[in-house]
Amino acid sequence: MKYGYFDDQAREYVITRPDTPAPWINYIGCQSYFGILSATAGGYSYYRDARLRRLTRGRYNNVPTDFGGRYVYVRDNETGDCWTPSWMPMQTELEDYSCRHGMGYSVISSKKDGIRTATRYFVPLDETLEIWQVTVSNERLVPADVSLFSSVEFCLWDALDDQSNFQRNLSTGQVEVEEGVIYHKTEYRERRNHFAFFACSEEIAGFDTQREDFLGPWRGWDKPVAVMEGKSRDSIAHGWSPMGSHHVKLRLEPGETRQVVFVLGYHENDKDDKFDPPSSQILNKKTVKPIIDKYCDLETVDGAFDALTKHWDALLGVYQVSSPDQHTNRMVNIWNAYQCMATFNMSRSASSFESGIGRGLGFRDSNQDLLGFVHMVPSRARERILDIAATQLSSGGAYHQYQPLTKKGNNDIGGDFNDDPHWLIIGVAAYLKETGDFSILDEPVMFDCQPGTEEPLYEHLKRSIQYAEDRMGPHGLPLIGRADWNDCLNLNCFSDTPGESFQTTTSKEGTVAESVFIAGLMVLSAKELSDIAKVIGKDGDAAYYARISADMGATISEHGWDGEWFLRAYDDFGNKLGTHEQAEGKIFIEPQGFCVLAGVGVEDGKARQALDSVAKHLATPHGVVLQQPAYSRYYIEYGEISTYPPGYKENAGIFCHNNPWVAIAEAVLGNGDAAFDYYSRISPSVREGISDVHRLEPYVYAQMIAGRDAPSHGEAKNSWLTGTAAWNYYTITQWILGIRPDYDGLKIAPVIPERWDDFRVQRMFRGVSYDISVVRKGSGNVVSLSVDGKPIAGDIVPPPADGVAKVTVEAIIG
Amino acid sequence: MKYGYFDDQAREYVITRPDTPAPWINYIGCQSYFGILSATAGGYSYYRDARLRRLTRGRYNNVPTDFGGRYVYVRDNETGDCWTPSWMPMQTELEDYSCRHGMGYSVISSKKDGIRTATRYFVPLDETLEIWQVTVSNERLVPADVSLFSSVEFCLWDALDDQSNFQRNLSTGQVEVEEGVIYHKTEYRERRNHFAFFACSEEIAGFDTQREDFLGPWRGWDKPVAVMEGKSRDSIAHGWSPMGSHHVKLRLEPGETRQVVFVLGYHENDKDDKFDPPSSQILNKKTVKPIIDKYCDLETVDGAFDALTKHWDALLGVYQVSSPDQHTNRMVNIWNAYQCMATFNMSRSASSFESGIGRGLGFRDSNQDLLGFVHMVPSRARERILDIAATQLSSGGAYHQYQPLTKKGNNDIGGDFNDDPHWLIIGVAAYLKETGDFSILDEPVMFDCQPGTEEPLYEHLKRSIQYAEDRMGPHGLPLIGRADWNDCLNLNCFSDTPGESFQTTTSKEGTVAESVFIAGLMVLSAKELSDIAKVIGKDGDAAYYARISADMGATISEHGWDGEWFLRAYDDFGNKLGTHEQAEGKIFIEPQGFCVLAGVGVEDGKARQALDSVAKHLATPHGVVLQQPAYSRYYIEYGEISTYPPGYKENAGIFCHNNPWVAIAEAVLGNGDAAFDYYSRISPSVREGISDVHRLEPYVYAQMIAGRDAPSHGEAKNSWLTGTAAWNYYTITQWILGIRPDYDGLKIAPVIPERWDDFRVQRMFRGVSYDISVVRKGSGNVVSLSVDGKPIAGDIVPPPADGVAKVTVEAIIG
Repeated sequence: MKYGYFDDQAREYVITRPDTPAPWINYIGCQSYFGILSATAGGYSYYRDARLRRLTRGRYNNVPTDFGGRYVYVRDNETGDCWTPSWMPMQTELEDYSCRHGMGYSVISSKKDGIRTATRYFVPLDETLEIWQVTVSNERLVPADVSLFSSVEFCLWDALDDQSNFQRNLSTGQVEVEEGVIYHKTEYRERRNHFAFFACSEEIAGFDTQREDFLGPWRGWDKPVAVMEGKSRDSIAHGWSPMGSHHVKLRLEPGETRQVVFVLGYHENDKDDKFDPPSSQILNKKTVKPIIDKYCDLETVDGAFDALTKHWDALLGVYQVSSPDQHTNRMVNIWNAYQCMATFNMSRSASSFESGIGRGLGFRDSNQDLLGFVHMVPSRARERILDIAATQLSSGGAYHQYQPLTKKGNNDIGGDFNDDPHWLIIGVAAYLKETGDFSILDEPVMFDCQPGTEEPLYEHLKRSIQYAEDRMGPHGLPLIGRADWNDCLNLNCFSDTPGESFQTTTSKEGTVAESVFIAGLMVLSAKELSDIAKVIGKDGDAAYYARISADMGATISEHGWDGEWFLRAYDDFGNKLGTHEQAEGKIFIEPQGFCVLAGVGVEDGKARQALDSVAKHLATPHGVVLQQPAYSRYYIEYGEISTYPPGYKENAGIFCHNNPWVAIAEAVLGNGDAAFDYYSRISPSVREGISDVHRLEPYVYAQMIAGRDAPSHGEAKNSWLTGTAAWNYYTITQWILGIRPDYDGLKIAPVIPERWDDFRVQRMFRGVSYDISVVRKGSGNVVSLSVDGKPIAGDIVPPPADGVAKVTVEAIIG
Repeated sequence: MKYGYFDDQAREYVITRPDTPAPWINYIGCQSYFGILSATAGGYSYYRDARLRRLTRGRYNNVPTDFGGRYVYVRDNETGDCWTPSWMPMQTELEDYSCRHGMGYSVISSKKDGIRTATRYFVPLDETLEIWQVTVSNERLVPADVSLFSSVEFCLWDALDDQSNFQRNLSTGQVEVEEGVIYHKTEYRERRNHFAFFACSEEIAGFDTQREDFLGPWRGWDKPVAVMEGKSRDSIAHGWSPMGSHHVKLRLEPGETRQVVFVLGYHENDKDDKFDPPSSQILNKKTVKPIIDKYCDLETVDGAFDALTKHWDALLGVYQVSSPDQHTNRMVNIWNAYQCMATFNMSRSASSFESGIGRGLGFRDSNQDLLGFVHMVPSRARERILDIAATQLSSGGAYHQYQPLTKKGNNDIGGDFNDDPHWLIIGVAAYLKETGDFSILDEPVMFDCQPGTEEPLYEHLKRSIQYAEDRMGPHGLPLIGRADWNDCLNLNCFSDTPGESFQTTTSKEGTVAESVFIAGLMVLSAKELSDIAKVIGKDGDAAYYARISADMGATISEHGWDGEWFLRAYDDFGNKLGTHEQAEGKIFIEPQGFCVLAGVGVEDGKARQALDSVAKHLATPHGVVLQQPAYSRYYIEYGEISTYPPGYKENAGIFCHNNPWVAIAEAVLGNGDAAFDYYSRISPSVREGISDVHRLEPYVYAQMIAGRDAPSHGEAKNSWLTGTAAWNYYTITQWILGIRPDYDGLKIAPVIPERWDDFRVQRMFRGVSYDISVVRKGSGNVVSLSVDGKPIAGDIVPPPADGVAKVTVEAIIG
């Protein structure tokens, strides 16, 4: 069952009924001003930091689900009928409802009683504001007299404090209203120099800034008294709950269409120029007024929207595929790339499931997110890499998270996730291969953000390996520390305190528990570092890290193999984990996928055997579960993984992030059908047809799909902000379609399904446009290349001569 | 305008319309299980710690205001009509609505379509559960076929995590349902050994435990689909949002009345006996079942309610007054004492304004709360004193707050509130005077909760003074530290970071800024310590602290006097604060009230002059504002006080906590009319008639009433949890009625209005019942006493002979 359809031409998902199983959201903004927007106009906005600069108030886990909103109310002034064209919050029955979620914008449309309304929400490039562009048409045969009411509820900036410190906050709210513009300036009188503004392109008939005046006592957003009576209260908030609402009266002739623009934004003044006149407490509006005036102009707004569209044309144009599979085309060309941008921008901070108050940017997360983002805006990837590296400790270890506003490591969350340092190498390698910009390796980068500790980035990469070398366990495998990629596999925590966080509790300095997953990761990271060293002429380093990689591969084969699959770990008692010898948690997905993709066991058949075990024990129609059998009880020696009910999250859920590792592993072994099959099982577009089972957005990945041990097998949770986006993008574009940046050029190594006859990719790479046609002429994966009509040896297209902007590649595989 | 009335006979406030200006709440529970309950059945429950053991989910600042609930729905199965007898959340129109808030219970009643419903909510003594006792009567002439649906939404224990960590929490929810009892056991499978249960006295027709199944998609609590269709879904929650609902079908003959009891509770199992059978993951219900069975019996429930009533009879019976003023009688005999119990139990943790996740117990708060509580349950006061003292640092300093679960000082909140240590002396002195139990002074008490550091409590008191002696400023006045009693007067913070907490930011080690308020406090605390020392025969100490007190009084007169009133402080630059020389903040209430009540300036006329200045500059009909003129802008050198908009909170709001200091001060100067006038201005009962202005509960004090600089002058905020309760109780009972425990006996020193002819107090004191009649025979305050018919000298009734249980006192004043 579906709740809408993909409009691939328009790059939109069109939701055709508002009562989706959960709020299906989109993001607006892609630089510094961001908003979450559901198909029923729910959501909130913030500037840069979802916790500390929250503009509008969000309520999570509310009933009905409705976490704040950008509501426009319509009132028919002849009948007194009121409705919200976004369905929520009034839930009045509507005709022709649709929400078109597009690239950085959404349009919510509907019709009622002959009045058609469409509201386009977006954030203009390079601005810290959002536009609500409302188009109202009178489709009646007679004139219509309607009122529009806008509404937002302001958050008092710090989203956590806003939802907890009421004894203070209900006394601090302040606003100004001048020339129809509502200014929210709580705490501006003291240490803030920022404020929010909410403007309207039309002359207004009234306004409200105090929530209770607008809504009326004991009323919700579903029946605001100001709207229902058609009369704003012109209220000025002093304390309590500042909000913003404009009232616009429109008289529309039959067939007439009018546009009204609402502009909601964030603005900062110079600290020394906050007031006007300076001796007063009146907000200085001189610097913001030109911005407001600019966007209250309809032509400017249309122009800004066009610019946004072109921006996305360029971003998505870097990689476009035309394959026999519409799901692949749609995900690669539009939605997966779009989600990668969201994860890069948001990390794991603000979504329907991430409340925006809990987390900073993850060291590991952000490095992995680069895999799906680096080709779109390499300059931002570069900046992110340097930010991340500067939080690394001189030991080579890492804070697990850092704060985006301060760019400092987050001391509240523990470190000692021993996989973290390796991901820096993976991220840097991806950047180097994409850009060829080796200058980044020479950039002086601090340790722990301490000035004076700068070393070249290359040295940071070496420390990452050194950190692991300094922490080897009894079997020569890397110690796991607090946890590895699986945050919930806590072999050193031994927590028995209710509610205690496994990520922050004191963890013992374990010298026994080892991770086979980190071992596989290290085979890859050391190899990547060896390759980097080779390219920059450090042959000694290259040989050293190549040996480390090979040795670790051998160690895995010796101590990390269980007979039919790779072990997961050794616990603090030196006992095996992820072994047939145990009753629960016999086999885990992570070491199977990652060891094989790193090349371990490819030669001696272990890789094949491991993947066969995955297919046999872990694969389901909804994706591959994390482990089997699920843990039926709490194991204090394993930690959080066993706290989840069976089938959810890391306890035998389909943790989508690691599914693509298996797909890549199959591709490494040359099995295009299997690789594509795994890829497709969790593809949002493929799953669109079972939206009633999957329940979350069919255009983006979720972190988790309930595994077969759960009563709701196939139900997704935690959509949008997950490393799943980058890894699947990386899998399909670089390993299945096989168009893979490399140091020497663009590698063409498809491992596609046998049934595919051909596909075509257009790829920007280091400033050159590649038009790549791949034709299958046999069932294998051997590639023969022609570049601009001339056959070349090998599978790498070398850079063209200087000045050449376009290259045509024809590949035959078989 | 009023929204109800006092029923003094029943000790209830009866709310007669549900749409009060804000939720008007009551508390249920007075030992370890607590609940907030509004007049429309909103609120939540917790066990001991409002943050870490939250049973049911609360939502603050929601619209409509409705922060979780204990809703009972009624459905007429013949017509399909549904309503909630508590008005919320369905808001159906009701007949005869009332909510009777009583002592530890509330009864919400209404009638609709001939069906009368009354639900009595209370917590039985010595139990960790709450009762909802529903009485349903059919007042129709024909039989009625009705369904009742109960409902609660479970919180996943940690209230902060519950409202922020959705990526985990939506996967963890677990319940069991057995024999009609709903068990909420999220995380029980792992480290918790506690669970919630929700039972019903009747056989049930169905149940629900998953919120979305009960409500239906996109529906709120105002239209749950299970209720509206008259059919529970028998849902079992796996993740998402566990809740509890029973469905009870009743057929009622004309005139028939039935009772249904719902029991919601908290229970712990032994860590080693969590499961039954032990090898399973099934909740061991053996220990809880007898409790459930017990309270599903109607007679037991009635008995438990009677016991609760008797409990309050005893608590309130300690002090009962009969005076010419009904407000005084009502507040002293019922509501003020009741509120003192709430502040003692809750400190500042959970109310309509305190979200229960932000604060521990305050060092200063709890000591002051004792003033209003100590006579009711001295043994609990004793325990609290020892807990507080154990968090004191060896320097004599204090953590500003400590956590009730761990009883350890709270490192997250800074210390250095230099008034804190003095309050320990004030609290202990009150305990000693009430009980005569000097053994507490010999109790070994740790410093900073470090075993091995124990010293007698008496030594702690000495350290409190030592702390101040070690921190004297340039004028010989005590340094203020981070702040004094006024948390918001931050003379050493100099904060310029938006949103930074003044309580936790780094504060400079100020060696200049001094507090005249602390000086006044020290005059009192040193005098109290001197008195204690004298009583226990430490004459050297007594003389020493008496001298300190006197010297500090002299220093205030020299350096703390501004000509017409006491200065407030010296700031970090050595400039005066609270002086006529400044343009804003010329005069503050705190030093006027406190210096005079400590006796400073009584002899030389400064006291009278200071109070005249209060009357002239600070008094309003709604109470006395904190300072004048309000700060119109942020003063970085004064801190948080200037962050509030003028008229709110500490920036010229009527901060009710300090109003009684002025009343006591007037009493000290012998002015009964003025003392009683100040007392009455903020008396909830007196203000009942302007409930539309005051807006909060007319039966308890609020922390703040908006001052005359605010647009909403007279509007209250932050009701219930405020030191205002204890201070006003102390003022009226000990200083105006003047029945004051002292070391040598019970002092009788009324300073009542001139127009009062007489009053009578019944007072339990050290196990003896005193029946005290006071008759005015002149306009003065001079007291002549007869005890059991015999005149005695002085104004102190000495303890009677051993074995005498009742004493009659007749006092003539004039």
